Amino acid sequence: MTLTAEATSHPGAGDGGTWRFPEGQPLRLDSGASLAPLEIAYKTYGTLNARKSNAILVCHALTGDQHAASVHPVTGKPGWWSRVIGPGLPLDPQRYFIICTNVVGGCMGSTGPASADPATGRSYGLAFPVITIADMVRAQAMLIEAMGIETLFAVTGGSMGGMQVLQWAADYPEKLFSAVCIAAAPRHSAQNIAFHEVGRQAIMADPDWRGGAYELHGVRPEKGLAVARMAAHITYLSEPALQRKFGRELQRDGLSWGFDADFQVESYLRHQGASFVDRFDANSYLYITRALDYFDLAAGHGGMLAQAFARARHVRFCVLSFSSDWLYATAESRTIVRALNAAGCRASFAEIETDKGHDAFFLDEPQLDLTLRGFFASAAHLRGVA
Amino acid sequence: MTLTAEATSHPGAGDGGTWRFPEGQPLRLDSGASLAPLEIAYKTYGTLNARKSNAILVCHALTGDQHAASVHPVTGKPGWWSRVIGPGLPLDPQRYFIICTNVVGGCMGSTGPASADPATGRSYGLAFPVITIADMVRAQAMLIEAMGIETLFAVTGGSMGGMQVLQWAADYPEKLFSAVCIAAAPRHSAQNIAFHEVGRQAIMADPDWRGGAYELHGVRPEKGLAVARMAAHITYLSEPALQRKFGRELQRDGLSWGFDADFQVESYLRHQGASFVDRFDANSYLYITRALDYFDLAAGHGGMLAQAFARARHVRFCVLSFSSDWLYATAESRTIVRALNAAGCRASFAEIETDKGHDAFFLDEPQLDLTLRGFFASAAHLRGVA
Repeated sequence: MTLTAEATSHPGAGDGGTWRFPEGQPLRLDSGASLAPLEIAYKTYGTLNARKSNAILVCHALTGDQHAASVHPVTGKPGWWSRVIGPGLPLDPQRYFIICTNVVGGCMGSTGPASADPATGRSYGLAFPVITIADMVRAQAMLIEAMGIETLFAVTGGSMGGMQVLQWAADYPEKLFSAVCIAAAPRHSAQNIAFHEVGRQAIMADPDWRGGAYELHGVRPEKGLAVARMAAHITYLSEPALQRKFGRELQRDGLSWGFDADFQVESYLRHQGASFVDRFDANSYLYITRALDYFDLAAGHGGMLAQAFARARHVRFCVLSFSSDWLYATAESRTIVRALNAAGCRASFAEIETDKGHDAFFLDEPQLDLTLRGFFASAAHLRGVA
Repeated sequence: MTLTAEATSHPGAGDGGTWRFPEGQPLRLDSGASLAPLEIAYKTYGTLNARKSNAILVCHALTGDQHAASVHPVTGKPGWWSRVIGPGLPLDPQRYFIICTNVVGGCMGSTGPASADPATGRSYGLAFPVITIADMVRAQAMLIEAMGIETLFAVTGGSMGGMQVLQWAADYPEKLFSAVCIAAAPRHSAQNIAFHEVGRQAIMADPDWRGGAYELHGVRPEKGLAVARMAAHITYLSEPALQRKFGRELQRDGLSWGFDADFQVESYLRHQGASFVDRFDANSYLYITRALDYFDLAAGHGGMLAQAFARARHVRFCVLSFSSDWLYATAESRTIVRALNAAGCRASFAEIETDKGHDAFFLDEPQLDLTLRGFFASAAHLRGVA
């Protein structure tokens, strides 16, 4: 390939930027449509070594972004995986070159529904094509190739990030040395789809959504997006964790006998909704939830999940789940592991005991840190990454 | 008491109507407020025997109503418990006099937020006082007394109906011979409150809600109420049941690559939302979910659930749960049973194995029918109900 990409800062140099692929290098989508020009926003941590053997791609979840280990430019909060990426942590930038991209369809710099549609010069809105997890991964592969990296030492991520890991193993196994899939599933279940549909309907019911063209009208469907976030957020936490954290504790002394937030859990959820709309785009939420709902890795391989991994026998897999995760339960990870085994892949698996639910991969979970540290150290030793 | 109530048809006569308590006989509420005039809409099935020993009060769930075994006047569908109430069924009107009332706060004829506020002559809207499960039960007790029934042969219900059963046992044990509590909990958990808060926020985010005064404006917050119903409906079904019923089955051949209902589960949920708004009032949904969130039976008894049942040692209890119910899980029913045991009450308990989730008590569940039939037959024998 001819490297025609331009970057606002060179990706190897340190902290990332936005990689712009020219018109002539579109992202070809599963829908049959193409996306051009394509921009992929990314962050990097650490330095690519001379052999280019130490690159780790970290894939973010539904509402995540490329700011995995750096201060978020909107919220000012630490990156979503700053507990895992950093000096002395399992993903140590002194050893690895860590890349995190904003998925295509996202709203933190990569091409998405809020980007300018070259056909009109205005935001795509609903003219943006529906995308898939495979499309996200294809865009990442374009960036990795543009960076001159032939093989990733590892690809990893939790939740939707884990689905991207599985898609990488299916579509680009030759570019992978190892793969760590956390709290994911090989396909979206009926219940998963149902929760997402509630969120989409909440957004589309908001009159400020304006058929997706809210940017043209100078409004945002904040109330609908907040409700969507609130519904989804419940699925990220386990029932015991909610009970332990909030129980029936009140905000004030006594009940209000009204519809104020009487219970702390109500106030917490309202805050989750309100703060989310500051940093996320409603149309991106529609498109990314749709990509998740469309995800069914086996479907592209004759319904045989093991077939998806048939070319990945050389890849070292690690599959992790959380015992109290009811969004993508341990049974889903076991299905992945069975398929990996059936395909003849090397797969280690651990169910981490925790009451923290799906979001445990973001949270203080020492067992996760230890497991990641051990797996990456062992894989690095095998690959000769110092 | 002086029987000053008026009924549009006499309750013992057959099919019910609306019982109107006069201004001078208000419903005294837990909040400290009073509600007058109070109307309670009810249906009856069967005939009260001469000894008045065969009356069964059936309590409905959040979105249910008094039409337990008769055709619903709005939807034209069979009553919500027509599988259980009827000739030859566990609750046989040839043997029992079965009463079902619309809860106070409801929207099918009992006094609720859509009723005329005597202070203004217009709908209460948010001027309606916040009500509790105990208030609902107090209104039922007023009706039972007005009907001249001193002791109920049984009180029963599922979900919120089960909570009313527990409240009856706490507040009016002297009026009970037996009590059957199905798929309920002794208090609303943080997760329960969280799901309800999502629904309330969806309703209140709808601009047609108009601060609860939508009736004055000739509009209804249908979109918000539909989203609330969709979110709640997911909690009524188990994940395996959703998967078995819908899986990833599509509505049409192939994906739409858009935001139409591609998956059957999406179409099903949209239908659940759309049909719900035809028969339910948004403000009633706010008030009844609030009553559920406020429910914590132990709180009124020094935090000791067993104390709530201290006067109910003579009552024969049956507590039933469904193995796949994650809204009010079996653990909640076990908590109830432990408290009953600690209080020295007679309690039988069964967890019914089913994958149908919380809504199993509405559905074709032969084990439930058998259990109810056995319990009621045995209790009827003990009480000498022919």
